[in-house]
Amino acid sequence: MVVEVLRLGHRWGRDKRISTHVALTSRALGADKILFVSNDDHVKDSVNRIVEQWGGDFKFDVVDSWKQYIWSFKKNNGIVIHLTMYGENINEIMKKIIEKRQEGKDSKNILIIIGAEKVPKEAYELADYNVSVGNQPHSEVAAIAILLDRLFEGSSLYKEYPDAKIKVNPSDRYKSVEIR
Amino acid sequence: MVVEVLRLGHRWGRDKRISTHVALTSRALGADKILFVSNDDHVKDSVNRIVEQWGGDFKFDVVDSWKQYIWSFKKNNGIVIHLTMYGENINEIMKKIIEKRQEGKDSKNILIIIGAEKVPKEAYELADYNVSVGNQPHSEVAAIAILLDRLFEGSSLYKEYPDAKIKVNPSDRYKSVEIR
Repeated sequence: MVVEVLRLGHRWGRDKRISTHVALTSRALGADKILFVSNDDHVKDSVNRIVEQWGGDFKFDVVDSWKQYIWSFKKNNGIVIHLTMYGENINEIMKKIIEKRQEGKDSKNILIIIGAEKVPKEAYELADYNVSVGNQPHSEVAAIAILLDRLFEGSSLYKEYPDAKIKVNPSDRYKSVEIR
Repeated sequence: MVVEVLRLGHRWGRDKRISTHVALTSRALGADKILFVSNDDHVKDSVNRIVEQWGGDFKFDVVDSWKQYIWSFKKNNGIVIHLTMYGENINEIMKKIIEKRQEGKDSKNILIIIGAEKVPKEAYELADYNVSVGNQPHSEVAAIAILLDRLFEGSSLYKEYPDAKIKVNPSDRYKSVEIR
């Protein structure tokens, strides 16, 4: 199963830090790739620097047409989830999504759409699921984090990368880091 | 039980959007208050505007001495959790924290410390638990979101505020908002 994140509405400059947090959270919580609709070197460089040091092969990519990308993704054994504060409560829908993902002989790929500013209504229409992480205004970083945590049921927090140059040894009392 | 969040190392200007996301995520995921160590009108106004429109009585506050605040909090039936990528994996420790919270006749209050930049080592020492949401670099917004989601086991996503001026009606297909 591949999990990708599509970041809509990223505003160059203004959103660089929030979008970087969205990207790094996606990587750390188990996604394989983040897609932007326009390039942003600040975000791209931050992501690549983290991957270079901490390992794995998480990708930053830019798509030409996000609608077309969603269409192809759906046709290619994929489920599309749009995260929005107006959607159905994740508490209600998550079990159904996890079951849907396991239907058929290969588990399905997942594309998660996460907007910055106002999201075009096509995103609602193209998505298989419009999901809210509560219906209060908060943060797209929080929403993607909780969705991925629930999708992987905590397992992505154990991910290790053999090619990592830095590795943390978890400790209740002090910082312990291995540099290779 | 009261849940508070202590934001350390907030840098005025640079961190305003990330810290606002930390604050709004804390509110939406069930915390009662966020404490900063220095004032930031941008963050404070954003929080107050959301509370005014969306209801509840989530508070933004500034503490003079964070170390003293932690000390008093611990003495006053409180548990202190420090979120750090170097800490013990949340998968391992969360059950213990939830049990600890329910010890005694009143359930204990919780203070969550979340840093922006490098956190002074006193934070590690004063905390009852140093907890990581995975040991990969990602985002303090993601970390606080997942910790609160696991602490409340999803229940905070149903929170409703009788004094709200705006309310979302969750929907799988379209935006539906009630204005009162």
